[in-house]
Amino acid sequence: MADIVRVVVDAMGGDNAPGEIVKGAVEAVNSRDDIEVILTGRKESVDAELAKYTYAPERIRTVHCDEVIETAESPVHAIGGKKNSSMVVGMNLVKHGDADAIVSAGNSGAILVGGQMVVGRIRGVERPALAPLIPTEDGVALLIDAGANVDARASHLVQFAQMGSIYMKDVVGIQQPRVAILNIGAEEEKGNALVKETYPLLQSCEGIHFIGSIEAREIPHGGADVIVCDGFAGNIVLKLYEGLADTLLKKVKEGMMSSFRSKIGALLIQNALRQTLKSFDTSEYGGAPLLGCRGLLVKTHGSAAASDVKNSIIQCVTFKQQGINDKISEHISRRKKSDMTDA
Amino acid sequence: MADIVRVVVDAMGGDNAPGEIVKGAVEAVNSRDDIEVILTGRKESVDAELAKYTYAPERIRTVHCDEVIETAESPVHAIGGKKNSSMVVGMNLVKHGDADAIVSAGNSGAILVGGQMVVGRIRGVERPALAPLIPTEDGVALLIDAGANVDARASHLVQFAQMGSIYMKDVVGIQQPRVAILNIGAEEEKGNALVKETYPLLQSCEGIHFIGSIEAREIPHGGADVIVCDGFAGNIVLKLYEGLADTLLKKVKEGMMSSFRSKIGALLIQNALRQTLKSFDTSEYGGAPLLGCRGLLVKTHGSAAASDVKNSIIQCVTFKQQGINDKISEHISRRKKSDMTDA
Repeated sequence: MADIVRVVVDAMGGDNAPGEIVKGAVEAVNSRDDIEVILTGRKESVDAELAKYTYAPERIRTVHCDEVIETAESPVHAIGGKKNSSMVVGMNLVKHGDADAIVSAGNSGAILVGGQMVVGRIRGVERPALAPLIPTEDGVALLIDAGANVDARASHLVQFAQMGSIYMKDVVGIQQPRVAILNIGAEEEKGNALVKETYPLLQSCEGIHFIGSIEAREIPHGGADVIVCDGFAGNIVLKLYEGLADTLLKKVKEGMMSSFRSKIGALLIQNALRQTLKSFDTSEYGGAPLLGCRGLLVKTHGSAAASDVKNSIIQCVTFKQQGINDKISEHISRRKKSDMTDA
Repeated sequence: MADIVRVVVDAMGGDNAPGEIVKGAVEAVNSRDDIEVILTGRKESVDAELAKYTYAPERIRTVHCDEVIETAESPVHAIGGKKNSSMVVGMNLVKHGDADAIVSAGNSGAILVGGQMVVGRIRGVERPALAPLIPTEDGVALLIDAGANVDARASHLVQFAQMGSIYMKDVVGIQQPRVAILNIGAEEEKGNALVKETYPLLQSCEGIHFIGSIEAREIPHGGADVIVCDGFAGNIVLKLYEGLADTLLKKVKEGMMSSFRSKIGALLIQNALRQTLKSFDTSEYGGAPLLGCRGLLVKTHGSAAASDVKNSIIQCVTFKQQGINDKISEHISRRKKSDMTDA
C-alpha cells in the first residue's frame, strides 16, 4: 500500500462549514485507504457533525481551535492576529510536518498569505502561485498564477511555468505539457512589458515545453496545458470563466422557455445539457493548489459542497505520492545553479 | 434633415474584402439618407463589386489606391511605409476633414497605430483607446481599453473612463453610465499597482459616475456600463468572451446530439437557441471605436460580413451627429484646466 497522506481540513472555512466540510472529509477517508484527516475547528460543532457518519475513527481526528477567520477579514491581519484559528492552526500542523497538506474553503486571501507567512516557501521558490485547473473543450488547462501575485516579475513567471509543468505532468498525467504565456496576440513581439521580458526567458528555460504566446480566445479551445500569467490577468480569466458560463447558461434557459415548442424541446434535452455544462464548471476540478509552499495548500471555493472537499482531499494524495514538492525543489534549484554558472 | 455624415470604408481590409465590404457600404447608404461613403481601394475591383447593386451613385465614390496593408504586417512599418494603401489614404481623408470617420476590417494593429500617427489625437487626450461594446445579460457594456494601450498609466485610465462615459451616454443612450475599474476583488484595497493608483483618481474625477471595482465575473451579469482597464487586461476579457461563447455553444450542441431523445429536443429548440446566442455574439454590436482621435476610427472584425460593415457605418453617424469628439475635447480639457488650478 502507498504511504498514508495526512490532510488537514479547515472545518470552519467556507459558506457551508462545518456541515459539508466534515461530510466531505468522511467521504474522502471512506473512499480510500491511504488518507488520514485532521479536522481543525470548534470541537463541539465538528464532533456533532462527525457523529452523523460511519468511518474508521482512527483515521479522522479533531483539533480544537477557538477562532475562525471570516471571509471579509483582511488576510494579513487575520493570519497575523488569529493564531488559534482553524486555518492558522491547520497551517502550523503542515509547517511542523504533522500533516502533508491543508484544504480550506475559507478566506482566499488568508490562504495565500498563510502559505507564505505560516507554511513558508520551498527553498528557491520566489513566489508561491495559485494554480486552478480550468475546463477546456477536451480536458483541462492549468492557469498559473490565478491571483496570488498581482504584480509579478518575469523571474516569477518562469518559476510558475516550471511548477505548472511538473503539476500537469505528475498530478494530471499530461506527458510533456504545452506551456504558453497569456498574451494579446500570437506574435512574439506583442505583449505588455512583463510578457516581453518573460518570453525569451521561457524560450531558454530548460525542462519545459514552451510553445509561445496564447490569446485568451484559445484557452477554452485547449490551446495549451499550462497558461502562464501574472495573478491579475489570471484572476480575470478565472472569474470571467465563471461569470460567462453562468450567464450563457441562463440565456440558453431563457431561450428555451420562449415558446411552447422550445419548452417541449427543453424537457427532452435537459439531462444531456446538464451533463455537458457540468463538464464546464470550474468548481468540478477539485480545489486550486497553491504551488511553491513547503507542504501543500489547496483552496477550494467558498461555496464548496462535500464532493468538492472530498475531491480536494484526494488531490492532496496524488500530490504527495508523486512527490511534487521534491520535484519542484529539485527543478527550481537546478535552474538557480545554472544561473549562477552563467553569471 | 440631419447633417450628412461622410464615412470612408477601407474596401481592401478584412477576410471578405472587397465583396462583403462593398456590399455593406451599399446597404448602409440604402438604409439611411444621411450617409455618404468613400470606398478606398483598387478601383477596378471595387467598382466591379459596386456594379452588382442599385444605389444613389452620388452617395458612394471610390478613391483608388494601389497598396493594401496585409493582416500579418507589422503595424508601424505598414502605416509608415504604405502611404498609398486603402487604410492610410482613408485615414488621411479623415485627417484633412474630407471625411468624418473611417471603418476598416483590416490589420487591427495598423488601425491603432494609424489613429495616433496619421489621424492624430484630440488635443488633451493622452492615449486613444479601443472601446468595443460587449454583451451582458440584459444589454451591453463598454470595455475601454481593449488593446490599444498594453502598458497604460493611471492618467490614461481616467481619460478612458471619461471618454467611455460620454460614448455610453450619447451614442448608446444610457443615462448616467456606471463606471467601474476591472479588478480582482470588490474591496478598495485590492488590485495591482496600476489599479491602486487609478482608483482614487476615479473617485475624485468629476463628470463620471464611478461605482468602484468590478470583478470579471460580474461583467457578463451587467455589473457596470463602462469597464475601465489597461489594454492588456481588456484584450483578455474581449478574447475570452469570444472563445468561451464559442466553446460553450459547441458543448451544448454536442450535448444535444448525445441521445435520440435529446436530438428531437434539439430540433424543437434550435430557433430559440440561435436567437439567444446571437444576442451574446460580440460581433453583433457594430465595430469597436478608437476613442480620442480627431475624427472617428471604427475597427470591425477581420471576418466582418456586409451586415457588420453596415452597422459600423451607421455607428459613425450617431457618433458624428451627437458631437462625441467635441464633448470629449471639452470634458478632457476642462479636467486639464482644473488640474492646473489645483497645482
